[in-house]
This record gives sequence, structure tokens and C-alpha cells, in this order.
Amino acid sequence: MRVLRVETAEPYEILIGGGLLTEIPQDLPQVLETRHLALITDETVRDLVAEDLARILTEAGFRTEIFSFPPGEASKNMETVVQLSRSMVRAGFDRRSAVLAVGGGVVGDVAGFLASIYLRGVPYVQVPTTLLAQVDSSVGGKTGVDLPEGKNLLGTFYQPRRVYIDYGVLTTLPLSHLRNGLAEVVKYGAALDRGLFEFLEAQAEALLAYHPEPLEEIIYQSCRLKAEVVSRDEREAGLRRVLNFGHTLGHALEAALNYQILHGEAVAVGMVAAARLSEALGVAEEPVAERLEALLLRLGLPVRLPEGVAPEALPAFLSADKKVWHGRLTMVLLRRLGEFVFYEDPPRESLLEVLKEISI
Amino acid sequence: MRVLRVETAEPYEILIGGGLLTEIPQDLPQVLETRHLALITDETVRDLVAEDLARILTEAGFRTEIFSFPPGEASKNMETVVQLSRSMVRAGFDRRSAVLAVGGGVVGDVAGFLASIYLRGVPYVQVPTTLLAQVDSSVGGKTGVDLPEGKNLLGTFYQPRRVYIDYGVLTTLPLSHLRNGLAEVVKYGAALDRGLFEFLEAQAEALLAYHPEPLEEIIYQSCRLKAEVVSRDEREAGLRRVLNFGHTLGHALEAALNYQILHGEAVAVGMVAAARLSEALGVAEEPVAERLEALLLRLGLPVRLPEGVAPEALPAFLSADKKVWHGRLTMVLLRRLGEFVFYEDPPRESLLEVLKEISI
Ligand SMILES: NC(=O)c1ccc[n+]([C@@H]2O[C@H](COP(=O)([O-])OP(=O)(O)OC[C@H]3O[C@@H](n4cnc5c(N)ncnc54)[C@H](O)[C@@H]3O)[C@@H](O)[C@H]2O)c1
Ligand SMILES: NC(=O)c1ccc[n+]([C@@H]2O[C@H](COP(=O)([O-])OP(=O)(O)OC[C@H]3O[C@@H](n4cnc5c(N)ncnc54)[C@H](O)[C@@H]3O)[C@@H](O)[C@H]2O)c1
Repeated sequence: MRVLRVETAEPYEILIGGGLLTEIPQDLPQVLETRHLALITDETVRDLVAEDLARILTEAGFRTEIFSFPPGEASKNMETVVQLSRSMVRAGFDRRSAVLAVGGGVVGDVAGFLASIYLRGVPYVQVPTTLLAQVDSSVGGKTGVDLPEGKNLLGTFYQPRRVYIDYGVLTTLPLSHLRNGLAEVVKYGAALDRGLFEFLEAQAEALLAYHPEPLEEIIYQSCRLKAEVVSRDEREAGLRRVLNFGHTLGHALEAALNYQILHGEAVAVGMVAAARLSEALGVAEEPVAERLEALLLRLGLPVRLPEGVAPEALPAFLSADKKVWHGRLTMVLLRRLGEFVFYEDPPRESLLEVLKEISI
Repeated sequence: MRVLRVETAEPYEILIGGGLLTEIPQDLPQVLETRHLALITDETVRDLVAEDLARILTEAGFRTEIFSFPPGEASKNMETVVQLSRSMVRAGFDRRSAVLAVGGGVVGDVAGFLASIYLRGVPYVQVPTTLLAQVDSSVGGKTGVDLPEGKNLLGTFYQPRRVYIDYGVLTTLPLSHLRNGLAEVVKYGAALDRGLFEFLEAQAEALLAYHPEPLEEIIYQSCRLKAEVVSRDEREAGLRRVLNFGHTLGHALEAALNYQILHGEAVAVGMVAAARLSEALGVAEEPVAERLEALLLRLGLPVRLPEGVAPEALPAFLSADKKVWHGRLTMVLLRRLGEFVFYEDPPRESLLEVLKEISI
């Protein structure tokens, strides 16, 4: 088992290990005073993981109840939060209880948000079950739900008491979702850690074959990098924006396609665009795009705009991100592989040029 | 103008003055970096106060927009929060904007909650317009909404940047709502400040006639007392429970009557019961109930259980409070007027005895 510490205002630890789920019952009392647990999950993960976890918790003397909702982003809304809360109230969950988020990023975001507002806040713990959730969404304390007007528009910053990452549960994860998580790992490598990037280059095929050793390594390194960033910038005032590498254009692409694209695929294309832009603007001190594209291709991730998306259409979708960042569009570019730079308001023509290059 | 400081993790000030609303535009820049303001209010307060406030803010160069909902507790739910958020997103409110809560306790709780989750948190300011909101709900940072299963079940602790209390707006407040706020002032006096209690005895009629001087005094003293309590206990782990004087039985009464009673009226009866219980259990070192009842009667507040409420029915409704307090029912009793004591799990028979005494 490997352990990482996140140094937020209320620090907490991330535990990583194969088969770790079975150790949760004996570890939980270190971070929770209560034995009354609401397991929040989706209907898929309920059958695959949550029922088993509930059973071993019950056997260890915990009082547990599972609350689930239909899987998928469409459930990530306030109606789900209200329904879960109402069920929990009726089931007698009070301030002395805690929430376990067992699932992918949707479950983590919904359950974390619920925990942050239920009776004005109860403790919660993350048990991420997708690679994306294990390397990204379960760490950092961002919670939230979508509105019809956009994603993650309502939410809180609320840190979990602990994160339990058992990569053993990934065996049932569809390959497309494994790739989805790998895109974020490439992000950490390309923007923050050349060693991780080169590890991905060395282990691409083993990762796609779900080998546990390289999975453990990339999860550990990704969480370490995210924990470092989040520890220095809990509420995304500055440094935390580095995690947006590939996401600025990725979000625009998702919006342009009305979210009919996997997040990781959009991020992959976004990273390629950012890498090429780094070269075009003379920010890059070594070639970065070619190696990045080669790695993404080996991981089965796209490196070109999907058919039907006109390059000219994308910049309009950048304004949403722009608003959020005090009127300026800060892009994350690469000086070299493993080293990012912030770049403010890149010229529109260069952006368009690059988007044209990568359109098919 | 009088100024009070609340020493929470993020400290803030309460400004109190007649006609203070007109000074908001010049003061706001001290606590907000933005000039983009969402005024959240209810439809009654919109006409009485918010439109005027929006006008003077606009004249002073702020970009303001009013978002309102139907008045009353029935609006205090997640649906209202979602509708308001959606309108704000569509109107272009981003992280660089702020929320002004202009209204009674319902508006304050809804708008404060909204501010705490909108884009994971934007700053907000309270402009309370009922006496209850001015002496109680606008101070302390408790926000939230109701579920069909109970009141205030979802919410956050989120402190405002400033509280502007203009008692000039109370002239339009119906007498029943003035009384509703006075009940909370009696609470502060009886539990925490004999001077305030005696001031109420001296000024009861002037208060009911909406005289500004005594109104300013009781608002100031109430906010001072609440600010002191909240500064020492931001998240209601201990001392903050003193604010529950009269509320334990008050809540039970509200629940028993399905909230068809004004909160202040329920609290008045609850205080009488608590005072009598203090005497019955030998906690009181001087007679407390008689003077309390006399004051409440002069203020037009009830001192007996409403017709149709059986004393035997009430204890069952105490369990909700009990759950919240780690399985024990901590009641706030009186040693003398102006001095409280916490008392755990009072004997059920004594409680019933007292309730029978005050049933008609
Ligand atoms: N909070 C953050 O910091 C953060 C960061 C990145 C992404 N996110 C959010 O995360 C969400 C995406 O996360 P996601 O990709 O995990 O989506 P998800 O939670 O919808 O999971 C994807 C699918 O995999 C299934 N699944 C989960 N675990 C499985 C397992 N072990 N085996 C088989 N199937 C399994 C789920 O039922 C679901 O159908 C988005 O809503 C995004 O906004 C949040
Ligand atoms: N957050 C806290 O710490 C806290 C504390 C106590 C109570 N509360 C909450 O406060 C709420 C009750 O507050 P309330 O009594 O102010 O209710 P409210 O907000 O519903 O206001 C009562 C009525 O007075 C009207 N009104 C408001 N200002 C007016 C004015 N100046 N002139 C004429 N009419 C006016 C409103 O439109 C409404 O119809 C409850 O939901 C309660 O849970 C919160």
C-alpha cells in the first residue's frame, strides 16, 4: 500500500493498493468517529463494488445503507442530490453519520456535494472506481452538479477525510473509460513530470492490458502531482490552473459537440492543440507535439478534431472559460515535455491556424 | 451608525443605522471587489425595498439585476435555488460577481446558500428587512433550504462579507412579523443579558409602535450577543446552542402544528415552558417564569399552548432535535433572567408536568 498526504486546510491521506477495499473497515475508524455510513453509488457500481463493500463493512460492525442512482452524467444534477438527501433523512441519517462515495467521477462529485450540504455538512470518504476518478476527480475536494446551462455550475470545495484507491476494481472498467483516465495521466506527465510521461511511453501496451503494476505507478504519480498542486492552491486561484492543460480547448470541443464525446478524448485533442500552439508561439524549447501525439495514438486516444467540427466554430466556445478567469483566457502551454507555462490570451489567429492543422 | 464585528474565521462587520440603505453604494467597494451584483429578494420585498436599492446602486455605477421568488417559507427549497442559479447563469453572472440578499430570513437563507454554491462560491452581503432577520438570521452564516422531510436540512456555513441593517425598512413590516422578531430579542435578553431584558420591559409599547430609537437599541444588543456567541462557536459545536433557548419546545410545537404557527409564537411558548422547567427542576435561583410571561404578554406573544395541542403529544416531536445533538437532548434553562444553563435530558415527567400547566 502506498500513502500520499494532501496538505489542504484539513489535511487528508490517499491510500493506494490492490485489494485495498477489504482493508477499509479496519482503517475507517482512524478518520471517522461514526459507524453509520451512507454508501452513495450508481446502479452499475452498486452491483460491481458497493454491495460487496457494504457487506464487509456490515460484517465489521458498521451500520450501512446503499443509496444509488442511474449511472452517467445525466444524473449529475440537483434533483439527484435532493432525492438522495430525502432518502437519507427518512433512513435516519443524522449529523453523526458519514458518506462514502463509491464510484466514478459522477458519483464522487454528487456524493461529495451532498456530504458538504447535508445537515450543513457531514464527513465523507472517496472510494473511486474509474481510472479517471482514481487519478483526478477523487482528489482535490471539488464537488458539484450540472445545470442545464452548463457543467459543474453549482458545487463546493469540500475535502474528503480519506481517499481509498483500489486499482483492483478497474478490471471491469470498459476500455474506453480506461483510456478516458489515461488521457488525464498524459496531462500530468506532459505538463508536470517528464518521468511520468516517459513511463507512459514505456508501458502504454501494458496499461491497455490492465496490468496492475504500471496502473499502480501511474495512479500513485498522478495523485502525487495533483496533491502537490492542490496543497499549494486549494481554491484554484492560480497554480491549480495547470490542471487545465488540454482542457481549455477540450471543454470548447465538448461544448461544441454537446458533450457527445468522452472527456478524455476531448482533452487528448486539446493537449495536441496546446502542444502545437506552444511550438507555433515559440514557447516550446524542444519539439513537444510529435511525441505527445505518438503516445496518445498508442493509447488509442484521438489527436485530430472529430469530423464535422469546424475549426472556426471552436473559439466561440472558449468564452465560457474566459469569463471564469477574470476576463482573460489563460492557456497552459509547454516549454518542454514535463514543464508547463501559463500563457495569457494567445492570438486568435495562431489558435485558428493550429486548429486547422489538426482538423481532418 | 453603529458597527459590530463578528470574529469568525473570515471576520466581517454588521452596520446598523436608520436610512443606512442609501449608504450601501459607497460602502460596498470596501468589502467587494466587484461591481456586478445579483439582488436576490422575494416579490414583496422587491417592491418595498429591492427596486429602490437597485436604482441607487445603478446610479452609483453598479451593474445590478434583481432575481425574485414568491414570498414565504414554501419557497425555501432547492427548486428555488436552481431556478435562481439558472437565471443568474443566463444573465451572465460569473465568479467576479456577488450576491446581495435583500429580504427576511427566507431570502437570507436561500441567497446565502445560493452564494455558497454558485460556481463553488461567490461573495455575498446581507440586507435583512424583517426584524427577525435583523436580530437573528442575517448574522452567523447559517444558510439553507428545507426538504419535504423537515426544515433547514440542506445548507452550508457561509459568512457574508457584510451585514447592512436599516431599521427604517421595518415601517412596512406587519405587526405580527414585528412580534415574531421581538420573541428572539426576548430570547437574547432572558438567556444572556438581563439589561436587554429590562430594556424590553421598559420599552415594550414603544417597540410595538415601531419607534426607531428602541428598535435600534434592541437590534444592536441582539446582534452584539449573537456575534459574540457565533465568534466563539462558528459551527455550533457547543456554546451556540444557547441560541436554542425556547427553541427546543418551540420546534416541537411548530412540527406538531405542521408549521401553521409563527416561529416567534412557538418560541414564546417554548421559553415559558423552559422557564417554568428551570423552576420545577430547582435550576432557577430566582423566579423567572412570571416576569417572562408578563413581558411576552405585553408584546402580544402567546404564553400558553395553542388550543388543540395536547401536552402529551409534544415530547414525540423532540426526538428530531435529539438526534442532531449526539443522542442527548440538551435544553437551555435559566439560572436567573439573563443567565442560562445547559441541562441534559430533563426528566420526561417534569417536562410533561410543565406542558400541562401551560395548556389551556
Ligand atoms: N471533482 C473533480 O475534480 C473532477 C475532475 C475531473 C472530472 N470530474 C467529473 O467526473 C465525471 C466523469 O467521471 P467518470 O469518467 O468516472 O464518469 P462516471 O462516474 O460516469 O463513470 C463512468 C462509467 O463507468 C461506470 N463504472 C464506474 N466504475 C466502474 C468499474 N469499476 N467497472 C465498470 N464500470 C464502472 C459507471 O457506472 C459509469 O457508467 C464528470 O462529471 C466530471 O465533471 C470531476
Ligand atoms: N440562518 C439563520 O441563522 C436563521 C435564524 C432564524 C431563522 N431563520 C430562518 O428565517 C426564516 C424566517 O424569517 P422571516 O420571519 O424573516 O421570514 P420571511 O423572510 O418569509 O419574511 C416574512 C414576511 O415578511 C415580508 N417582508 C420582509 N421584509 C418586509 C418589510 N420590510 N416590509 C413588509 N414585509 C416584509 C416577506 O415578504 C415575508 O412575506 C425561516 O425560514 C427560518 O428558518 C434562519
